[in-house]
Amino acid sequence: MTESQLPSQIPFGRYVFERIKQVGVNTIFGVPGDFNLSLLDHVYTVDGLRWAGNANELNAGYSADGYSRINGMSCLVTTFGVGDLSAVNAVAGMMAEHVGCLHIVGTPSLSSISNRLLLHHTLGNGRFDIFEEMSKHITQKTASIDDIRTAQAVLDDLIETAYTTKRPVYLGLPSNFVDQLVDAERLKTPLKLTLPPNNKLAEDEIVEGIFNKIIEAKDPILLVDACASRHDVQDLVAQFAEATKFPVYTTPMGKSAFSEDHSRFGGVYIGVLSNPDVKEAVESSDLILSVGGLLSDFNTGSFSYNYHTTNVIEFHSDFCKVRAATYADVKMKYVLERLCRKIKDAKLDYVPKPLPESVNDYKQVANIKSGKLTQDYLWKKLSFFLRSGDVLVTETGTSSFGVTQTHFPGNITAISQVLWGSIGYSLPSATGAQFALEEIDPSRRCILFIGDGSLQLTVQSISDICRWNLKPYLFVLNNNGYTIEKLIHGPQAQYNMIQKWDHFKILELFHDKVDYENHRVSTIEELNALFADKAFNKNDKVRLIEIMLDEMDAPENLVKQAKISEQINAA
Amino acid sequence: MTESQLPSQIPFGRYVFERIKQVGVNTIFGVPGDFNLSLLDHVYTVDGLRWAGNANELNAGYSADGYSRINGMSCLVTTFGVGDLSAVNAVAGMMAEHVGCLHIVGTPSLSSISNRLLLHHTLGNGRFDIFEEMSKHITQKTASIDDIRTAQAVLDDLIETAYTTKRPVYLGLPSNFVDQLVDAERLKTPLKLTLPPNNKLAEDEIVEGIFNKIIEAKDPILLVDACASRHDVQDLVAQFAEATKFPVYTTPMGKSAFSEDHSRFGGVYIGVLSNPDVKEAVESSDLILSVGGLLSDFNTGSFSYNYHTTNVIEFHSDFCKVRAATYADVKMKYVLERLCRKIKDAKLDYVPKPLPESVNDYKQVANIKSGKLTQDYLWKKLSFFLRSGDVLVTETGTSSFGVTQTHFPGNITAISQVLWGSIGYSLPSATGAQFALEEIDPSRRCILFIGDGSLQLTVQSISDICRWNLKPYLFVLNNNGYTIEKLIHGPQAQYNMIQKWDHFKILELFHDKVDYENHRVSTIEELNALFADKAFNKNDKVRLIEIMLDEMDAPENLVKQAKISEQINAA
Repeated sequence: MTESQLPSQIPFGRYVFERIKQVGVNTIFGVPGDFNLSLLDHVYTVDGLRWAGNANELNAGYSADGYSRINGMSCLVTTFGVGDLSAVNAVAGMMAEHVGCLHIVGTPSLSSISNRLLLHHTLGNGRFDIFEEMSKHITQKTASIDDIRTAQAVLDDLIETAYTTKRPVYLGLPSNFVDQLVDAERLKTPLKLTLPPNNKLAEDEIVEGIFNKIIEAKDPILLVDACASRHDVQDLVAQFAEATKFPVYTTPMGKSAFSEDHSRFGGVYIGVLSNPDVKEAVESSDLILSVGGLLSDFNTGSFSYNYHTTNVIEFHSDFCKVRAATYADVKMKYVLERLCRKIKDAKLDYVPKPLPESVNDYKQVANIKSGKLTQDYLWKKLSFFLRSGDVLVTETGTSSFGVTQTHFPGNITAISQVLWGSIGYSLPSATGAQFALEEIDPSRRCILFIGDGSLQLTVQSISDICRWNLKPYLFVLNNNGYTIEKLIHGPQAQYNMIQKWDHFKILELFHDKVDYENHRVSTIEELNALFADKAFNKNDKVRLIEIMLDEMDAPENLVKQAKISEQINAA
Repeated sequence: MTESQLPSQIPFGRYVFERIKQVGVNTIFGVPGDFNLSLLDHVYTVDGLRWAGNANELNAGYSADGYSRINGMSCLVTTFGVGDLSAVNAVAGMMAEHVGCLHIVGTPSLSSISNRLLLHHTLGNGRFDIFEEMSKHITQKTASIDDIRTAQAVLDDLIETAYTTKRPVYLGLPSNFVDQLVDAERLKTPLKLTLPPNNKLAEDEIVEGIFNKIIEAKDPILLVDACASRHDVQDLVAQFAEATKFPVYTTPMGKSAFSEDHSRFGGVYIGVLSNPDVKEAVESSDLILSVGGLLSDFNTGSFSYNYHTTNVIEFHSDFCKVRAATYADVKMKYVLERLCRKIKDAKLDYVPKPLPESVNDYKQVANIKSGKLTQDYLWKKLSFFLRSGDVLVTETGTSSFGVTQTHFPGNITAISQVLWGSIGYSLPSATGAQFALEEIDPSRRCILFIGDGSLQLTVQSISDICRWNLKPYLFVLNNNGYTIEKLIHGPQAQYNMIQKWDHFKILELFHDKVDYENHRVSTIEELNALFADKAFNKNDKVRLIEIMLDEMDAPENLVKQAKISEQINAA
């Protein structure tokens, strides 16, 4: 039964999932529990919707995160107390990193709540509100249904909020409301998914002011950061770069928001951790156009930006800033749109300057045929394995630092949790991303890099991968423990060691008849051979590739970052 | 260096672990992270202390729970934000179920906090207090160190609170304080670990009142519940039963708080889910002495107690109640001590009545030699495998309901999270219990029963088991998914299905050279043979035993409970 053939009254549970489907969500992540079971019945009544059925809630939350980063929105369903608390770290990560998600928590019926029953999944103190109270700290908005007459409006508002702010929201849904009937007609009123327009006067003023600065600038640059992709202005950034020919730099979190095959891509800026020529180019600029900046420690070489803030214009999702002047509620999207139009019509007398030479550093490895496999080699060589459409997921650790050295061709999507940095995140996030890719274009590949230590936290996400016969590449960096922690503190400490696993047994345990491959790579020859193998390049089965690396081998920028972090922690 | 040889000044980090060691904690659970690394250095400076190094934080928290249930107290260390939020479900479970634990969170240095640095592991909003705020809802007390001069007092108070209230507490420890020096002399002042005495007048009154009721009663019973073991009054209950000869019944959560080999043990009372003769015996009693009652739905057959509250005396850890009169702050421990003494000196003219015959139901299976393996057989037969000293951990599901049919010999400790009921809890909890047993008496066995669905949430706890060469029995009930959920709602629903695992590969993946065994049991013959095997009875290696059961086979009390739960959820 399609949406247009709906009866005039439908159960509220169905309404929830019809709305979710309308915002492009096709997979619902989560774990069943007795307070959400009757809700889950309605997943199956909506055409094209599926219930992922994750092995645990934290993984479900991380998968909702990865899915949303590809798809623009996601939905997570857990049960009361035990379920939402298990997922709360993943939800907080979405809050920190600007990822939109509707988190639905199936709660006890309203009569159980008003009678303060001593139900399981409570603290036994008669309080049913504390889990929502906890979620208020880590979501954009929370609400619980307490009246069927307002239920649709509450839900619609939450979805709109999550979608437009790119943040998680929390819906408490008592089990008794799931099958109560609501008016289906409301589904015909589209949700408000576009940002409200800016105040015209403020927008006029800022566009004019920025345009004049652009005209005057001798050596302007674009610096593209996390929120450029999270708030979906990559296309505007590309148009802007095309129209102006200004060089474009990215931050670690901004990487992949701009094609590195573009002739004006200059490299990755990470403060003191940058390549010297990139550092020089960015910091000597007389106008930095910073798009979607998120100046966290790991994204900035521990706050080691050394440019003059008097030269900076900041574009953010919900405000802009020109030098010291903040324009509250002026959203970058509309400002960038107008600027792009204005610049295309104008004539800039900007003469493109040469770019830092280090942008070609990755080519050094192109012709190396043999030798010891190192992190340095791996990340540069990866540039040649990647192709347009790939999604590359890296774990906070040697992977997220190493990948800044990888050259991304156009149309790569990079996922990493650089700000929130929860260990183990990348695997279930890749699982979620792979769900989204399968829906959009199954030929697009999802490629994960995770360390052997991080893998241990969330390994059962590979069970979810097998359950749905998803086909990601799972590169496991086997370097005998938590290398990033060893670099920060305690290189020989026992607490930085891990249990040794036989990684080839993982897919044996989880596969249940799906086709899979295990590989182990210890040398440059082996890595080259694998990347050159045509069959390997085609994502037609799940593959686990164990990469054997020295315990203390790490990307140079991570080694430096770790030293700074230790000092900050002791200060 | 032992405590008595300490220098006069020691780092605060060391002080923390010296104090923890003083309350009998020998294993610290948790996961390293950059804000706790320097703290962890101090674990190794305290004689006899070890860092477990769990595979993830939720499992670490559950293990701290299991450890504390055996040991009386535990300690969990996580890192800021990502770490504490991953463990928060386990901490809430300890709050709900009265389990003492010090949760230490390594946080950014005070200077980072006061400068509101945009550090990783934050939401990027400059707020460093929100994770402690969240923990306030699910702990007895929280505190963060902000001044080294008061740090020791703050810590001591938190440990005392956790120990005496049997609840979790939260300590935020900024990384800069870890190596600051404090006075070691304070370690010589013992922590206050005993409960403050009751108000004497109130205690006199209640003891006299209860004693008179006992004298008058014709048909009194003892009903022993969860908090009898959590607040450590099992010995007093045993003395009381011995002195009075009153029959003793337990609840599901109270099971194992009284020896079922005792001649006055009458069975398990679960309201309408009880055996009929037990229900009749309890509900016709004219004086119910309820010790440590925790009247949650799953513990009471969904609140189906049917006795006259006018006949009830309630003993609780922090109050007592005689019929309708509440005695605030009158702690059961001292009341029971005095009552025991008083009764021993007195002469009761109580004539012991015969006990319900169903207490011997488990013996029905003693001579069955072959046939289909069922849940009913399994739980009764288990009675003959158990021996004094065993710790039996059951998952919320068919296991926790089924085990009410098992007869426990004396000195069994049963662990189950009947109130909080978080799926997957039992495996890491058993891991924690096994750590404690290894320290107390390695010949004592830890026996886990978990379903194939629940196992998937926390499976990497088996990696922790192998890391420390622990030797529990891991019984995995393979019944093809979430049977408890199927009974509540959606018996054929796809959301109640799970990915099929090859369970024999689990120990292959994790073992790393430790000795292990896999078994599969599908028939009564096979189960009998295994239980009869002398080698199998000795806990000299980790064993995984897969028990093949029908998908919808379940203990009768669970089938009934599930029907009631579905009605409550829809109401």
